[in-house]
Amino acid sequence: MTQLQAILDPILDDLSIVDQRLKEFSQSSDLPTLGELLQHVFASKGKRARPALTLLASGFHEHDKSNVITMAAAVEMLHVATLIHDDTVDEADTRRGRVTISSGWGDRVAVLVGDYVFAASATYVCDTGDIQVIRRFSETIMELSRGELQEMSLSGNPVGNMTEYLQRIYFKTGSLFATSGESGARLSGADTAKVDALTSYSRKIGTAFQIVDDILDFESDEISLGKPVGSDLVNGVITLPTIFAMEDDSIRQHVEEYFAQGKPPNLLEDIVKGIEECGAVDRAQKYADNLAKEARDSLTLLPDNRYKESLEALSHFVVARVS
Amino acid sequence: MTQLQAILDPILDDLSIVDQRLKEFSQSSDLPTLGELLQHVFASKGKRARPALTLLASGFHEHDKSNVITMAAAVEMLHVATLIHDDTVDEADTRRGRVTISSGWGDRVAVLVGDYVFAASATYVCDTGDIQVIRRFSETIMELSRGELQEMSLSGNPVGNMTEYLQRIYFKTGSLFATSGESGARLSGADTAKVDALTSYSRKIGTAFQIVDDILDFESDEISLGKPVGSDLVNGVITLPTIFAMEDDSIRQHVEEYFAQGKPPNLLEDIVKGIEECGAVDRAQKYADNLAKEARDSLTLLPDNRYKESLEALSHFVVARVS
Repeated sequence: MTQLQAILDPILDDLSIVDQRLKEFSQSSDLPTLGELLQHVFASKGKRARPALTLLASGFHEHDKSNVITMAAAVEMLHVATLIHDDTVDEADTRRGRVTISSGWGDRVAVLVGDYVFAASATYVCDTGDIQVIRRFSETIMELSRGELQEMSLSGNPVGNMTEYLQRIYFKTGSLFATSGESGARLSGADTAKVDALTSYSRKIGTAFQIVDDILDFESDEISLGKPVGSDLVNGVITLPTIFAMEDDSIRQHVEEYFAQGKPPNLLEDIVKGIEECGAVDRAQKYADNLAKEARDSLTLLPDNRYKESLEALSHFVVARVS
Repeated sequence: MTQLQAILDPILDDLSIVDQRLKEFSQSSDLPTLGELLQHVFASKGKRARPALTLLASGFHEHDKSNVITMAAAVEMLHVATLIHDDTVDEADTRRGRVTISSGWGDRVAVLVGDYVFAASATYVCDTGDIQVIRRFSETIMELSRGELQEMSLSGNPVGNMTEYLQRIYFKTGSLFATSGESGARLSGADTAKVDALTSYSRKIGTAFQIVDDILDFESDEISLGKPVGSDLVNGVITLPTIFAMEDDSIRQHVEEYFAQGKPPNLLEDIVKGIEECGAVDRAQKYADNLAKEARDSLTLLPDNRYKESLEALSHFVVARVS
């Protein structure tokens, strides 16, 4: 059993019902074009980190599983909707090894299909009947688009600012992770203290997940990552390794020159090398590791069971170095 | 007092609170870029037909107004979000006399701002606390995007089919009109029979409104409409006047040739002339007039009051010929 299989073991059956729900949704449209697009989008399973979080967070109380499974399907649908619009915004050609809607069918179709999946995910959440969960879900959609807008609005004039960075990655990633865990806990009937603990855990895991993603942009080679090393900097996006590295005056100067001079590729190479050599990548990794530890600490008040073991293992898995 | 002023008279105070809510929303973002965009979008008031419908439909019962006003703001926000994405999809330059988000700030920003306003409108609906209304609202967003997708998917291979047309304009326009009226009625505490009556009225008004819009595409001159006469045909969209006209074999042949030959402008001129001369535009107008009458008939079971008078007057106003 791989590490990931072990983590998912307590929820394997439920996760396959979630997959079934997603498949049913992708086959539900009576409009042939839309049906084809939905089946294309949902054909490849993603990591399913968010539905897994919803299901694991529900594992501390006896409850009717149907609402939690519906919610788990909804968070994955919301994630997929976000990807459809993000790929449109980022002009990405492929996603999960398949052509994106925007590159295969055009931006216009991608905007509308994304809207459709967003709205469909909200109807699933409505089926849970829990207004607090429904409201939090809508707020999460606001935060996701706000995070992308924040990243975009700064890309013309990048600043390396820790507060801004943490806020931005909360909106981009932490928010939906938090909502995934929170809704699973709430719908299982957990009390406020446990809901808060699982929300805090999920938010921290989401933030750590995003930081590791940002680290990989410096570490991976182009082939395994599918995009050039340092692509965030090329896009004007400053992430944690760069923020740490810019404490060094000479690297800060380099980064400022890079943007001032219209991002010449030779300067990028120097900067990426500088960021790795000054230990900033290691510091960023330690920051993520520490968040994962804080996430585990949030779980203290929960009873020991296999769900808790999985959540603990997940916190290690999320920050495990891939390269 | 103009006809429209008379219609809105019973709800003028409430409508100005709705305007205030929209203004507050447009000023609520702590992200400067987003704030600027929201203020741009909400600076010009539209016709506010949808919030007016919500408010008028609530006028048959004593009720706490705050939920209805929140709902009225939400339907207008949803409409605005739709316009942001539609203008992106249609590559429109201006809207309500102002530059569109997509043409002024780019498609990427427009996609995300539209998402943000969609989600924000859903949080407003959550504030009403009525799950049935919330769910219907999410379904409406699905139907709106489905309607646009249906129109787009047919534009490559247009067919003049009455069933398809009525379904398409229900999704595009009727659905949100119906939801606007239904939610106002429901949140005011109306019983099922009255909710159904006001929903039916609103759906028919929405459908009639869209048919008149489609007629104007043939009737208006380019200057007053802001787009060329026959622009729907240019975009591969077949509407009611064309469907009626295509009962005539020679016009059907002309239309088929027009699309088969890649839409030559000289053929368009002949078709538009043919559609007007064969009486199809008048037939479409009669169809809309009849829908407006059916809408009024739906109101029979409601007590006579100034709200009912306004709804009756609105049904006449919606189908009044502009040119």
